Amino acid sequence: MNYRRFFEEAIDQLHAERRYRVFADLERIVGKFPKALWRANGRMQEITVWCSNDYLGMGQHPDVVAAMQTAAGGIGTGAGGTRNISGNNHPLVELEAELADLHGKEAGLVFTSGFVSNEASISTIARLLPNCLILSDELNHASMIEGVRRSGAEKKIFRHNDVAHLESLLQTAGRERAKLIVFESVYSMDGDIAPIEAIADLAEKYNAMTYIDEVHAVGMYGPRGGGITEREGLAHRIDVIEGTLAKAFGTLGGYITGTSAVIDAVRSYAPGFIFTTALPPAIAAAAATSIRHLKTSRAERDAQQRQAARTKQVLAEAGLPVMESATHIVPVLVGDPELCKMATDRLLGVHGIYIQPINYPTVPRGTERLRITPTPFHSDALIDTLKDALIETWDALGIPYGKAGQPAVAASERIIPLLVPKSGG
Amino acid sequence: MNYRRFFEEAIDQLHAERRYRVFADLERIVGKFPKALWRANGRMQEITVWCSNDYLGMGQHPDVVAAMQTAAGGIGTGAGGTRNISGNNHPLVELEAELADLHGKEAGLVFTSGFVSNEASISTIARLLPNCLILSDELNHASMIEGVRRSGAEKKIFRHNDVAHLESLLQTAGRERAKLIVFESVYSMDGDIAPIEAIADLAEKYNAMTYIDEVHAVGMYGPRGGGITEREGLAHRIDVIEGTLAKAFGTLGGYITGTSAVIDAVRSYAPGFIFTTALPPAIAAAAATSIRHLKTSRAERDAQQRQAARTKQVLAEAGLPVMESATHIVPVLVGDPELCKMATDRLLGVHGIYIQPINYPTVPRGTERLRITPTPFHSDALIDTLKDALIETWDALGIPYGKAGQPAVAASERIIPLLVPKSGG
Repeated sequence: MNYRRFFEEAIDQLHAERRYRVFADLERIVGKFPKALWRANGRMQEITVWCSNDYLGMGQHPDVVAAMQTAAGGIGTGAGGTRNISGNNHPLVELEAELADLHGKEAGLVFTSGFVSNEASISTIARLLPNCLILSDELNHASMIEGVRRSGAEKKIFRHNDVAHLESLLQTAGRERAKLIVFESVYSMDGDIAPIEAIADLAEKYNAMTYIDEVHAVGMYGPRGGGITEREGLAHRIDVIEGTLAKAFGTLGGYITGTSAVIDAVRSYAPGFIFTTALPPAIAAAAATSIRHLKTSRAERDAQQRQAARTKQVLAEAGLPVMESATHIVPVLVGDPELCKMATDRLLGVHGIYIQPINYPTVPRGTERLRITPTPFHSDALIDTLKDALIETWDALGIPYGKAGQPAVAASERIIPLLVPKSGG
Repeated sequence: MNYRRFFEEAIDQLHAERRYRVFADLERIVGKFPKALWRANGRMQEITVWCSNDYLGMGQHPDVVAAMQTAAGGIGTGAGGTRNISGNNHPLVELEAELADLHGKEAGLVFTSGFVSNEASISTIARLLPNCLILSDELNHASMIEGVRRSGAEKKIFRHNDVAHLESLLQTAGRERAKLIVFESVYSMDGDIAPIEAIADLAEKYNAMTYIDEVHAVGMYGPRGGGITEREGLAHRIDVIEGTLAKAFGTLGGYITGTSAVIDAVRSYAPGFIFTTALPPAIAAAAATSIRHLKTSRAERDAQQRQAARTKQVLAEAGLPVMESATHIVPVLVGDPELCKMATDRLLGVHGIYIQPINYPTVPRGTERLRITPTPFHSDALIDTLKDALIETWDALGIPYGKAGQPAVAASERIIPLLVPKSGG
């Protein structure tokens, strides 16, 4: 076994499959969002970011920035320990109360990332419940799939947003068995929305627990930014609402909210929570400020929806293959990984427009796309510039125009395959 | 299945076993380290923290605080995306270069926590290597155990720091089979140090990869803070050096360093890295500043060692059962979970001294202890105050005095058991 050669070959294989990812070196600019400095080949250039998950630009909001600076200046840059061993900090305690209030739940619990919140919470809940059956939407995020896997519990995958399929699985399991339904409100790559009410009805009928991921919705939907469950008046019918502080709230971290009992159980039993350093007070203070702001201000949400709708309209009218989306997410189909990568390279190099290619395994092969996320700060003029740049790129590379469908795919296709080079030596 | 009742019973059981953890509500005070405000029962009190993992007080260092504030003001409070999708930020790129340099390695990779860095890196490396055998020290941290588990690879546990036992396992496996030895440099609860050179010799002899966790050593040992591997001139003989930004460096996050090939493989294949938001630029900038400072300043390291030695001496001379420790960690044996909790409650309530009780499952039953971490900012006067408070507490509660041994235990005892209440309903 030659270890170095083995890992070099693993990387070579990614290159050969055109799946090797290069991270753009970016420096965002407070006050000029969505502009950023891009460093490449020894030079630096100002570009426009069109694929940020800082969906509302809250990461540069003056109050949020000030909250981080003030907490850093007063309390310091880190938490200094796990939650149990000296790391529990007052801004974090306040943040968890803010989150519980946001979703109308008894308690909240913050993790260092949304990924960890899903993985740790789903796995812990399903491991605690005796003989638990997990029912999981086929398009759930990688973090939820990891949580399901790690729980060791039996799982059944239901077809994406397919309530009839879910019901047949629940029926087979019966009322007595412990069951956990895990799904998302907004699916990030397609921008579609789950039938939450119908799923809640089924959960009641068959006595199942429900766990919803609202990471692409919190801050952006509902009168106070409580997500799709708030908008549709369904938050009280879902047992655990999971969200993130790293997208619309503009900071870092993930969380769950629910009854005191279930939150306390995850808090007490999840190794990924117990044995990790707490979120720094400066991050917690910034996040709480952002949440509080978005609870009373709807200006950001309205502007985001307006600019997202305008982006869809302008691109569709230009004949670009805008995929159907019920949300702020604007996917544009390319349908080929090589073309997708070439298109984004050209957009960045020629037009100063940064959009990441979304290729397999994040989306199924054949549905490679640009995933565009308009924010309140993407002006009408920027949208027009984007349209012109896309047209130029589509023409230059010969990418097909026309209306795009929305193909369904199996979750199994979406897991990162663990590549093993043929030669073991 | 009554879900609410089930989780309530799970919590009741923790109470019954005296394993229920209450997090102290703390607010550290920049400029007054190790002092903090403690909120309890509606009142607020200034206390002294004696169990911080901000080992050198870098979380309040003026340059580190300023770096965080400047980056937040200029770049914003969050990264805005995953590393691949718009979240890669320039301070993070610089931080990874700083870390590679710190350990004399080709490349570095930053994660949102040390827990995730261990779990994602160990599991990914061992899953990539064909038919990999993991050799794991029995006292490895929970995050490493999770990484080993999740890899799905075969594992053999070797007795703590037992080189002969490790060799017998390597011998059985043979030179050809892929092997990964995972261990720590400083074991955090006992403060002892691994025989790194002997392990590196064995790895060479039997052609195994080596992975070391230096989270309780980076910043604090070695001429530039590169950890025990730097101090002993062994960094180049270890394949992967893992560390944290959340302890001596005073911020948040974890990392690995190694050859470009192995780092690139983890970067490309670990779901827990790929699908998670990048560390905020403000955290990265603060961490890089802290690392840079500690590369050239040894004042903090010297003062920490001096105050740790003095603490051990003063407590031992007072007859307190200070456990053997080769490092800055000062464990004091209590040997009973109830007494341990009562002692720390009394220290906090009566003396304004905050030390967390370290009980099972973090340490084996019967070795319950106080884990004291003196920093450069714990003055001689504070050490004397601590000694007096401990004596008062030992006398009041009848805790045994005398010299403490250092019991060895099986790793299996250290995993969080997943409790299932007897009644399923």
